[in-house]
Amino acid sequence: MTQGRRWILAARPQGLPARSDFRLQRFTVAEPATGEVAVRVAYHTVAPGVLPKLSGETYTAMVQIGDVIPGNGVGVIEASCHPDLRIGDRVAGELAWATHVVVRPESIQRLEPATFGADVPMESAVGTLGGAGLAAYFGLLRIGQAKPGQTVLVSSASGAVGSVVGQLARIRGCRVIGIAGSAHKCTDLVNSLGFDAAIDYKTHSDLAAAIRAQAPEGVDIYFDNVGGEISDAALLNMKLFGRVVVCGQTSEYQRVVPRGLLGMKQVITRRLTLQGFVVHDFAGEFEAARRELAGWMRAGLLLHRPTIVDGIEHAVDAFVKQFEAGGGGRPLVRVG
Amino acid sequence: MTQGRRWILAARPQGLPARSDFRLQRFTVAEPATGEVAVRVAYHTVAPGVLPKLSGETYTAMVQIGDVIPGNGVGVIEASCHPDLRIGDRVAGELAWATHVVVRPESIQRLEPATFGADVPMESAVGTLGGAGLAAYFGLLRIGQAKPGQTVLVSSASGAVGSVVGQLARIRGCRVIGIAGSAHKCTDLVNSLGFDAAIDYKTHSDLAAAIRAQAPEGVDIYFDNVGGEISDAALLNMKLFGRVVVCGQTSEYQRVVPRGLLGMKQVITRRLTLQGFVVHDFAGEFEAARRELAGWMRAGLLLHRPTIVDGIEHAVDAFVKQFEAGGGGRPLVRVG
Repeated sequence: MTQGRRWILAARPQGLPARSDFRLQRFTVAEPATGEVAVRVAYHTVAPGVLPKLSGETYTAMVQIGDVIPGNGVGVIEASCHPDLRIGDRVAGELAWATHVVVRPESIQRLEPATFGADVPMESAVGTLGGAGLAAYFGLLRIGQAKPGQTVLVSSASGAVGSVVGQLARIRGCRVIGIAGSAHKCTDLVNSLGFDAAIDYKTHSDLAAAIRAQAPEGVDIYFDNVGGEISDAALLNMKLFGRVVVCGQTSEYQRVVPRGLLGMKQVITRRLTLQGFVVHDFAGEFEAARRELAGWMRAGLLLHRPTIVDGIEHAVDAFVKQFEAGGGGRPLVRVG
Repeated sequence: MTQGRRWILAARPQGLPARSDFRLQRFTVAEPATGEVAVRVAYHTVAPGVLPKLSGETYTAMVQIGDVIPGNGVGVIEASCHPDLRIGDRVAGELAWATHVVVRPESIQRLEPATFGADVPMESAVGTLGGAGLAAYFGLLRIGQAKPGQTVLVSSASGAVGSVVGQLARIRGCRVIGIAGSAHKCTDLVNSLGFDAAIDYKTHSDLAAAIRAQAPEGVDIYFDNVGGEISDAALLNMKLFGRVVVCGQTSEYQRVVPRGLLGMKQVITRRLTLQGFVVHDFAGEFEAARRELAGWMRAGLLLHRPTIVDGIEHAVDAFVKQFEAGGGGRPLVRVG
């Protein structure tokens, strides 16, 4: 009988999560039932988005006391009672903060061996080749319809989605300007990710003017991850017939009363198209998109730079730190 | 020498316009210079939108004291010094509150004899076949991409644009719901213009629920003339992948601080497309659109119902009344 370790919910977080809300538990890995597979987890995320499920603020997929904490991850199949998945297959999808997990195949996807290899590690399936990378891909290329020579502006440019948007815009032959929240992030966008310019919105009292200085002829595509004031500053710089890709509205999620978009008159006078999307709408094309993204990674045009935390015993620490001041990037736990 | 009458600006309106701000003047009609034409005005509008030009609140095309008041209209050419326009041609465009006006052809369009006739009076060129009708046509059919069987919601449905949008939606085979500001208007939309339903927004504390009651399966196309609270209520009723035609934001124009659109999260979760437009972008297709609209008028499918005011001497009275409580519809002055 294989022995594993997993994090379970010990107490519901009150407000911000505490380390004492979690407990690392040893357990005996169950055999998969018919239709199920057993996965040895290689990497798992500790995304902040799981918090409402732990604190009981959401009714959908709420985690009960004693339950294992859910999280996306990648792993290898160790036992299979499903005809389409074999021992040794690498998979990505909804796994858990655990060394081993038994799941149904609906919640995971098999990783194509041709896509993942030496230059495209399997853990990129929950990063640049995962939901964030796919949102950047379909958002910029399908919803935004980016064309060579266009000027692309992206908010939350250092984030998981934004950093890929900027790199894809460069690959597509666009000029790209990022908006981020620190001088350090802005330097990284330009020096490491190839952005043409980056604007630290925290140091500009007139963000619209700061954008204008970097895009005096206007913006063709604004990739919107945040909404609010930053989006209104972007609208004031759009070219006629420009496109706004509405991918996220993170500035709204914490508000009790939404602020929204004030500049609706710009939508008329500048003949703008604003389009929202959810990456899952493109699920049928994920494999083809991953192949193209993997090709760019192999060619060195698209960087995958996860913050790796080594050892499942550090998962909760990595989770909690994201809610603290200066929490930094999104960690990926190497179960090891 | 032909004698005419025209309204000139006697004093700048302070806030709302007063009858004493205008003076009806007799004048001798000038001969057109090379490239100009003299037009005998048959009908002219007294649109409220001219007020900022009179009160000096706008720097573009400001009317000076002693100047004739500008306004769209239709008329017949009485003298021409332009090779493309002949005596007897009917024209529509930027004329004036006057019996006669000398203009350059750039500001007017010749009315095709094949389009206008017994069932399609020339004055419809500044109504159903004018800017408002064309905005409804291109907004609903091009920007909205209306298809048979869809549900269309239109705000300011009794207005010049909205009333045509509703009728075109019915012609296109859509179900159409209007939002208007009085019980009388709502009755008229359903009984005279063929709307499937109409909602008086002033009598509903929960407008989103009122829309839901009329469109329980959701709205495919929202034709937005007003913005603000009404648009947010509409967003809460959009179907997945619905389209919002952003034609006007009248609720914003009077505000010092814009309110904007609060429900940007709906744009993502419902995968909405919001698109702004200006009718002039379609100028190259106006003639073809007018022919199609005229065909529907002849077939009795599209009503042209201007509020006619007889006699140029009543123009100022008709203008001022629109700013008073219960001002009613948009009048058209028959110069007579």
